[in-house]
Amino acid sequence: MRTTPFSVALLLLSALNSLAQEPVTSDLSFQHRLMPVPATLRFQPGRLNVDSAFRFRVDGYNDARLLAGLHRIQLRLERRTGLELPVVPSSESPVGGLVIRCSGPGKTVPSVDEDESYSLDVSDSGAVLKAPTVVGALRGLETFLQLLEGDAKGYFIPAVSIQDKPRFPWRGLLIDIARHFEPIEVLKRNLDAMAAVKLNVLHWHLTDDQGFRIESKRYPRLHQMGSDGLYYTQEQAREIIAYARERGIRVMPEFDMPGHVTSWLVGHPELGSAPGPYQIERKAGIMLPAFDPTREETYKLLDGFFSEMSALFPDAYVHIGGDENEGHQWTKNSQIQSFMKAKGINDNHALQAYFNQRISKTLQKLGKKVIGWEEILHPDLPRDTVVQSWRGPKSLAEAARKGYDGILSAGYYIDLVYPTWQHYTVDPTVSDSNLSEQEIKHILGGEATMWGEWVGPETIDSRMWPRTAAIAERLWSPSHVKDIDDMYRRLDVINIQLEELGLTHEKNVDMLLRRMAGTENIEPLKTLVSLVEPVKEYRRTRARPATVLTPLTRLIDAARPDSRAARRFAALVDGILSDAPDLLRNRERIESTLKLWRDACPMLEAMIDRSPVLREAEQLPRDLSAISTAGLEALSYIVAGADPPAKWREDKLAMLEQAAKPKAEVEFAIIGQVKKLVVLASELRNLRSLPHSEWRSRVLTLSGKGTP
Amino acid sequence: MRTTPFSVALLLLSALNSLAQEPVTSDLSFQHRLMPVPATLRFQPGRLNVDSAFRFRVDGYNDARLLAGLHRIQLRLERRTGLELPVVPSSESPVGGLVIRCSGPGKTVPSVDEDESYSLDVSDSGAVLKAPTVVGALRGLETFLQLLEGDAKGYFIPAVSIQDKPRFPWRGLLIDIARHFEPIEVLKRNLDAMAAVKLNVLHWHLTDDQGFRIESKRYPRLHQMGSDGLYYTQEQAREIIAYARERGIRVMPEFDMPGHVTSWLVGHPELGSAPGPYQIERKAGIMLPAFDPTREETYKLLDGFFSEMSALFPDAYVHIGGDENEGHQWTKNSQIQSFMKAKGINDNHALQAYFNQRISKTLQKLGKKVIGWEEILHPDLPRDTVVQSWRGPKSLAEAARKGYDGILSAGYYIDLVYPTWQHYTVDPTVSDSNLSEQEIKHILGGEATMWGEWVGPETIDSRMWPRTAAIAERLWSPSHVKDIDDMYRRLDVINIQLEELGLTHEKNVDMLLRRMAGTENIEPLKTLVSLVEPVKEYRRTRARPATVLTPLTRLIDAARPDSRAARRFAALVDGILSDAPDLLRNRERIESTLKLWRDACPMLEAMIDRSPVLREAEQLPRDLSAISTAGLEALSYIVAGADPPAKWREDKLAMLEQAAKPKAEVEFAIIGQVKKLVVLASELRNLRSLPHSEWRSRVLTLSGKGTP
Repeated sequence: MRTTPFSVALLLLSALNSLAQEPVTSDLSFQHRLMPVPATLRFQPGRLNVDSAFRFRVDGYNDARLLAGLHRIQLRLERRTGLELPVVPSSESPVGGLVIRCSGPGKTVPSVDEDESYSLDVSDSGAVLKAPTVVGALRGLETFLQLLEGDAKGYFIPAVSIQDKPRFPWRGLLIDIARHFEPIEVLKRNLDAMAAVKLNVLHWHLTDDQGFRIESKRYPRLHQMGSDGLYYTQEQAREIIAYARERGIRVMPEFDMPGHVTSWLVGHPELGSAPGPYQIERKAGIMLPAFDPTREETYKLLDGFFSEMSALFPDAYVHIGGDENEGHQWTKNSQIQSFMKAKGINDNHALQAYFNQRISKTLQKLGKKVIGWEEILHPDLPRDTVVQSWRGPKSLAEAARKGYDGILSAGYYIDLVYPTWQHYTVDPTVSDSNLSEQEIKHILGGEATMWGEWVGPETIDSRMWPRTAAIAERLWSPSHVKDIDDMYRRLDVINIQLEELGLTHEKNVDMLLRRMAGTENIEPLKTLVSLVEPVKEYRRTRARPATVLTPLTRLIDAARPDSRAARRFAALVDGILSDAPDLLRNRERIESTLKLWRDACPMLEAMIDRSPVLREAEQLPRDLSAISTAGLEALSYIVAGADPPAKWREDKLAMLEQAAKPKAEVEFAIIGQVKKLVVLASELRNLRSLPHSEWRSRVLTLSGKGTP
Repeated sequence: MRTTPFSVALLLLSALNSLAQEPVTSDLSFQHRLMPVPATLRFQPGRLNVDSAFRFRVDGYNDARLLAGLHRIQLRLERRTGLELPVVPSSESPVGGLVIRCSGPGKTVPSVDEDESYSLDVSDSGAVLKAPTVVGALRGLETFLQLLEGDAKGYFIPAVSIQDKPRFPWRGLLIDIARHFEPIEVLKRNLDAMAAVKLNVLHWHLTDDQGFRIESKRYPRLHQMGSDGLYYTQEQAREIIAYARERGIRVMPEFDMPGHVTSWLVGHPELGSAPGPYQIERKAGIMLPAFDPTREETYKLLDGFFSEMSALFPDAYVHIGGDENEGHQWTKNSQIQSFMKAKGINDNHALQAYFNQRISKTLQKLGKKVIGWEEILHPDLPRDTVVQSWRGPKSLAEAARKGYDGILSAGYYIDLVYPTWQHYTVDPTVSDSNLSEQEIKHILGGEATMWGEWVGPETIDSRMWPRTAAIAERLWSPSHVKDIDDMYRRLDVINIQLEELGLTHEKNVDMLLRRMAGTENIEPLKTLVSLVEPVKEYRRTRARPATVLTPLTRLIDAARPDSRAARRFAALVDGILSDAPDLLRNRERIESTLKLWRDACPMLEAMIDRSPVLREAEQLPRDLSAISTAGLEALSYIVAGADPPAKWREDKLAMLEQAAKPKAEVEFAIIGQVKKLVVLASELRNLRSLPHSEWRSRVLTLSGKGTP
């Protein structure tokens, strides 16, 4: 009978736990957990207790939006602490509560010119939040809630003085509901999440080849024939706009054209540049259909449509897309070719510029400003157009030099499954762009983009969060806030807090695994899925001939970007590498972790035998077994101080190279770390001749760059 | 360095896993996983493969409701298997698919008289579902989906022949959204869950002291002043009714009166029997306010209100409540007393009967049948009224003898946190009631009741499911289906399948624990919460002066009824008790389980120190440590075959008695099992003189009845 079955597991857990939790001390060295980090903040000794005597009070300007925002914060505070506070904010001077002093309502419609600044002062005796606008007050309330801490004495807010305002006025999240439709409750909970990290633009990608998702009362064939019945009614759109406004968030609609328009053409083939008929597109990728920019019928319908949409969407901007149109159908259409000759239009890019000018005029007449993807840049582009960069930061700098406002999305493509740190290091103002101060002001901010090819209501949250919180910080916080380790420390905290808003990014992982396995006993599968990531970039689309109707319920859908378990294992391995010459640090934890992985494998194989949906993953347990065994062998050589046999290193590195290849469209995120252990074990003899301080960098060099 | 950290954990997991998963063989002894069990079913050798060639086809009667239902089943099948099937049902004869042969639409409005029967025949070459009505076909489709199995060869449906129909025509679930409001998406997902287990009545408890939750266009002060803004618009009510109808579910509204009406009186104090003014009630319990049944104004408003509601709700029945009114305000009101004297009404019960008769007449004129709680039984009660029993089955039998139809809810009060088996053993036709066959026909079925005092949107699913599935089986399946072990085996399966419908009963447990702990590392807390249950009956209400505004985010809210972990531990303990005289069976698993519990304790204490919301639970880790240590000591005596020291048993039993007492309003569900181990260890000497077959029963007797 074994006597120590779980103690090592608990030891490990305890260690992981301590990575996530920081000691709380109320002094100047206080390590806060705010995201985004405020512009300036200074902690002081002291704490404001939060108990059932705590009260909120509005002092000065007050309106329904502020009260509703305060009510939401109060509910979240109550749910987090279990405290029950009075329904209505206090009208008396609270002792030990928060007073909100707001100067006025701010803009009637959420605007890029809104003042979002606030200040927050917390002491032992109370807290004061000051803001010139309601939106500023809402931003400050989110900060206040993020400040909540708990210890053996109870809940409290540490004493602090904060002056805060955003670095960029345009901080957006694009949600593409054309490729996969998302019900309004999905949008609502994500608007709450956006507000929690101070994002202020929902870029609503409403139409694309795969779906026309907004009701048009004027041209009902658009949504009726182009959406499979999956569209938002105008009433629902108003509901979303109001919901966003309550949270100080703009809703900017995108109607992508002249390409990406297949779904329009199902009901209105006469707008197309090829004869039709058209079907709703089911595949992902760049499609041929495009509006015919030479026919007046096209502009007549678009004039009417934009007039309807401009009334529906109060935001100052309308996004007209403009991306990925090569004009293949234009080239093949003789009538379009004649038109171009007659007008002296030289190429397809110029024809698109002609189209954009006409559309821009329409929108200008409707009182709207135009924004489009970087392809719209053309000498004829009206000067008040905003350019959204998606292929790289160069176009943004180019646009700024030409006097166009711009926002950055290149580098913030969260659908590409890159790790958080990679997005975090992307700055809208590229340092080597040589822009003047005046030109830099044209850079309004940026947007994370959640393209919808591979996300559905059950998985979209896990593809957006928590990574988008780090992008939100990049766009709000001063540029000097860029410590990656510290970002991850705070990201782990906000990650859990986001669940309070109904987000499913954490809880749906286990749910999907239970569904696949058909049982609640999913521990080995959880272990596996925690160590893999979906394939990056567009490799999923290339890997199999799937459509947007393919169920998103496979292992890849449960797997999440930026494996947390891999990140923690990397920290353990870095610990042992840094502990030359003894190499004692983290040894036990590394060993127990590797054994956990190894021992999951036989059970995984049994699960796969019962669940055909897991069959595609059958190689993964074998790979995991080989990976963890290699790590354990390496560790045993390190412990023994003995050289591995000849060819051991070569064999193991070859195995790791095979194991690193994607299977079932997921890839292990731990290969590079095990590689380091293998290199360490087989290099020990050589390392002994080096200074101890050089061991780590030597192993890293030998392990190779570019290792996952 | 330890070398076997997780293998025992995995061994345990594997063992638990095998309890949940059954071997799949396609022959007559096939152990199916259907819930509710069909009226008759016979498995045969053979299997129908389910792969990407699988097709659904409708042959014969077809309508939008059937197609939509089929589409939902197809989506669930796709999501469970990862297969992508064509969007539209096949029009050609499918090879190896399911053909649906439906004879007609059935009732236009879901009705207690609906024919819900169907037959399903599955062979190697295909499946045929026959039903006289669309609702019957929908019921059969749910069975078809439940039949899905998987093994190393792929997904399949075992060959089977099923003829099925419900035992009772009225199989309901009451959801009280008055005490805590539930958004319509909560109702929708639960309607899906109801359909999955073939329930057919949503009893919508719309008004009570704590809230008036339906929009009245005629008397808007009712919802405007009685709901805190938390009510359903009439459009939303229609949406729910349509959603339910699509799934063959009736929606029966309840307007509880003449008691339970505080929320009405906030806007209409003139209807009350005491002067007012009234406030929305925040506490749980039986309140004094009641309509004044002696004033014509009362009937005038109710006539108008019922006329409006009768148009809104198409169901044949309107529930008028009638429970828990003692008429204290009537007794104190001299005008009411004079009225009673003048009319010769002798007591409050008779006055309520007078009220009920008037209301009944109004509803009859509106074409509605009346249903009420058992207190409405009175000689003057119109004969076509339905009686809902809540205090016990006797009133149901009494009503049946008097010729009233009735439904049972006593025994199905899921808000009282009883284990599933307890509800499962309650039968609407009480065996000792001596009802004639004719009288028994008056018993239409039953309803589970989800009273809303202690549930919110985040927790209501976990209070309803999976237990309600077992009640659904009691009401659908033949009375001979009553094996409790087999029910639990199937319940574990349906439990996971219910998550496909968006239910949060599983996933919100961890979510709540993460919120409390403020971290994703919640393993020790998960262990603790898996071993406790919320206090039963009305003890939560009595334990602390909470209101319906108190956050439902404490440990008790994460804890679930009918601890699965305790059930599995009980099976392990029963195994060792049944293995006399060696007592070897399950030894290792019992030991590793007890150690897991014991070792969670230090980490739990650290978590509590960081999370004040957990402070109330600080005694629980200490108790758990003592409980598991007692179990381990017992096991070591059993292993050694040695007698424990004097007083050991006495000490341990005293400790267990203390540990059994609720703390933080939860109680351990494992005490009884550890008690058995303590008794076994200390009785070994005496047991050896008994026949081996008697050891188990002797220990059970000595461990005492009524142990949790």
